[in-house]
Amino acid sequence: MKSCIFPGSFDPFTLGHLDVVRRAAKIFDKVYVAIMVNSEKKGQFDFAQRKMIAEASCAGIPEAEVITADGLLVDLAGALGTCAIIKGVRNSSDCDYEMMLAGVNNFLFSCIETVWLPTRPEYSFICSAFVRELIKYERPLNGVLHPDAIKLIENNFKK
Amino acid sequence: MKSCIFPGSFDPFTLGHLDVVRRAAKIFDKVYVAIMVNSEKKGQFDFAQRKMIAEASCAGIPEAEVITADGLLVDLAGALGTCAIIKGVRNSSDCDYEMMLAGVNNFLFSCIETVWLPTRPEYSFICSAFVRELIKYERPLNGVLHPDAIKLIENNFKK
Amino acid sequence: MKSCIFPGSFDPFTLGHLDVVRRAAKIFDKVYVAIMVNSEKKGQFDFAQRKMIAEASCAGIPEAEVITADGLLVDLAGALGTCAIIKGVRNSSDCDYEMMLAGVNNFLFSCIETVWLPTRPEYSFICSAFVRELIKYERPLNGVLHPDAIKLIENNFKK
Amino acid sequence: MKSCIFPGSFDPFTLGHLDVVRRAAKIFDKVYVAIMVNSEKKGQFDFAQRKMIAEASCAGIPEAEVITADGLLVDLAGALGTCAIIKGVRNSSDCDYEMMLAGVNNFLFSCIETVWLPTRPEYSFICSAFVRELIKYERPLNGVLHPDAIKLIENNFKK
Amino acid sequence: MKSCIFPGSFDPFTLGHLDVVRRAAKIFDKVYVAIMVNSEKKGQFDFAQRKMIAEASCAGIPEAEVITADGLLVDLAGALGTCAIIKGVRNSSDCDYEMMLAGVNNFLFSCIETVWLPTRPEYSFICSAFVRELIKYERPLNGVLHPDAIKLIENNFKK
Amino acid sequence: MKSCIFPGSFDPFTLGHLDVVRRAAKIFDKVYVAIMVNSEKKGQFDFAQRKMIAEASCAGIPEAEVITADGLLVDLAGALGTCAIIKGVRNSSDCDYEMMLAGVNNFLFSCIETVWLPTRPEYSFICSAFVRELIKYERPLNGVLHPDAIKLIENNFKK
Repeated sequence: MKSCIFPGSFDPFTLGHLDVVRRAAKIFDKVYVAIMVNSEKKGQFDFAQRKMIAEASCAGIPEAEVITADGLLVDLAGALGTCAIIKGVRNSSDCDYEMMLAGVNNFLFSCIETVWLPTRPEYSFICSAFVRELIKYERPLNGVLHPDAIKLIENNFKK
Repeated sequence: MKSCIFPGSFDPFTLGHLDVVRRAAKIFDKVYVAIMVNSEKKGQFDFAQRKMIAEASCAGIPEAEVITADGLLVDLAGALGTCAIIKGVRNSSDCDYEMMLAGVNNFLFSCIETVWLPTRPEYSFICSAFVRELIKYERPLNGVLHPDAIKLIENNFKK
Repeated sequence: MKSCIFPGSFDPFTLGHLDVVRRAAKIFDKVYVAIMVNSEKKGQFDFAQRKMIAEASCAGIPEAEVITADGLLVDLAGALGTCAIIKGVRNSSDCDYEMMLAGVNNFLFSCIETVWLPTRPEYSFICSAFVRELIKYERPLNGVLHPDAIKLIENNFKK
Repeated sequence: MKSCIFPGSFDPFTLGHLDVVRRAAKIFDKVYVAIMVNSEKKGQFDFAQRKMIAEASCAGIPEAEVITADGLLVDLAGALGTCAIIKGVRNSSDCDYEMMLAGVNNFLFSCIETVWLPTRPEYSFICSAFVRELIKYERPLNGVLHPDAIKLIENNFKK
Repeated sequence: MKSCIFPGSFDPFTLGHLDVVRRAAKIFDKVYVAIMVNSEKKGQFDFAQRKMIAEASCAGIPEAEVITADGLLVDLAGALGTCAIIKGVRNSSDCDYEMMLAGVNNFLFSCIETVWLPTRPEYSFICSAFVRELIKYERPLNGVLHPDAIKLIENNFKK
Repeated sequence: MKSCIFPGSFDPFTLGHLDVVRRAAKIFDKVYVAIMVNSEKKGQFDFAQRKMIAEASCAGIPEAEVITADGLLVDLAGALGTCAIIKGVRNSSDCDYEMMLAGVNNFLFSCIETVWLPTRPEYSFICSAFVRELIKYERPLNGVLHPDAIKLIENNFKK
């Protein structure tokens, strides 16, 4: 069984993230969606909420499992026995940045591979920061979040 | 069983290519190294030679199988039942170019995923054109080709 | 009345080109689609054919006029009295290349502006070279060329 | 009558910004310079000062009108009836970032076009952050701000 | 005698920085490693510590001299009589950013040249932020800092 | 005495090239302008003409010496005892390409450094291909070539 880990802050988990999970699930038997706890940055949603949103979004993908974690990504990857870190790459700026991260993670734990999935064009503009902007200006979230994630936010996480 | 296809002209197959195959073999059960026949461009080595060099290089990787093919890559991928096209990406220029190819292949055959492996820094300068330059100036090929590929070239394919 | 010029080899004119014309027509009163004759490169279609394909594609845009031209682009732009050169930009590689062209054209004729339209994601993978590949392998052209352009090619320009 | 909107924080408005306005005014009948109020970031100049500096800089361009605004850019663009958002693009990093913004704005309001003007080489190093640095170290502002903007700052806005 | 200045925050000085100094020392008779004091950002190490770490790292390079400085880089470069600012460039994102800085410094002081050294692949993933991460998670620093810098940190600067 | 080598095809040598030589001459005691003979590509000017044009352009820079050479650049650099290869870098695409060449040259001859000079904005659009275009269309060459190079071409090398 081959598994991978898809790390991020997922604040919140978008349709762009979901597309990465869906595609990774075609390649790997298990996809861990790892919400990395970075205590310094306060986000839009707390970690319990982020987990619920990601879980609601990934409900239709049996290979996906959402976890929250702190510490170094490579330690988590090692503990879970995953063979790859999955990242979505949208453009050349992402490529440059992710190339450095791949080097860092390879330095720390040479057993793990970094695997990039090129972002599908239709998701290339979706990022969590943009979704938070939509929430701030009270716009509909259709087309950027999963319908079940939208329901969850509107019914339970309205600030 | 999950397989992928690693397409290229492989004129010749380098240690950089080999690193991609080795890493893909950690993720997929089968890695097809597909030497794409492009009749218009005459290369350094003919297709039979390219195949022998790639086979000599990949001999230690049981998951790898070298094939030659013409036509559209997606047709080949479909016929082989692979779920992914594998590409090595070295830098932002590669990223921009491969992003377009990923769009093209997704348009032609939406079932197949494009998967990028970020090139390891130590292989980032190795490309077939540079190897052909070394051959032209009769330099040693250590460090850029597999030892068995070097032997094959020196004993059999000297022009 | 403000006009612009959209230069290219248009071999053939694609839906991506059409999107640029359609968007330019929202800004300018007149959009010249200029098929630049570059005698050294033989293409898939000859210039008369390219013009007919572009005209069939742009038929629904009254602001568009297709012309063929040789010589320097800036001379043509000056002769037509256009105030801007229009270019589609898909990614950072295009940006670097087009930035140099903008500098060249500004050096030659400082009155003319270069204006870039960022390619819509859904057209980002479409380019004439890819369309020629589809023609070579006898694939359907739906989704990359205008329906009337397809009809024209299939009925009249089959090689 | 065709109008466009040139949004930014303009803290302060530079000669680089002015060049964008001047060139946009050759294409559009009206250019709204929109100082977007982002309440979270405190700047060098307050919004009334930014407006006065931008107005002093644009005084010679009858097509230009400086406004301050909050909320989403696309709402403002819609309310003003503009057909395009204008952005200056300096290099490939700008291109990648602005491509995402163009996607976002197209998602929110598909009627509006994003139009990029490639930065003239001589202005490529000028940005507001650099101007603030010059102010901090009490350097002359010639060559980066409009002479009337400099007078305004030196006579009225000295901190 | 030709000298250059290598500016940075060096929080802390890494093996990547050392490689730049070592290579610059092959070209210049004197290499000033200038720790630029930016009072707004609090770092991992204070300026006295950064200087000691950089000095420990550069001890084997007689051409190197570590200094701390505030103010504008070009003023310092002028006061020291250096003919060049040295920067390491890792990838295209660095290139775009450093191109703007080169423009800024040329505007402020046209006598000074900016010189880039392309980062060696083996150091391409090392940056001070990553080293601070390693320190936070109490990982060994071998391979990213000079052995004498590691000793200094472990014996004297443990927080 | 420290020398560097500035390789290229210089077909023809432009004001952009001259700016690189002028700046390199502030850092190095000797700058070899090396016209690399690439027998496969026929150019606008033959090698004797290219040498005369480069020499006419560099006449005012005593540190410069123009040579023609074939073979591998690193062999030439070694034979001349130079410590660095000089390259002008205009943008991120150049950066990606030159990074690979730097890796290649470092692999072949680790003693030699690659040094990049960021192109001055005012020269960023000048390249030999553009100059050849100007010649083809019989435009004035002022602003892209040195006045003495222009005289030489107009009086002696008119085709």
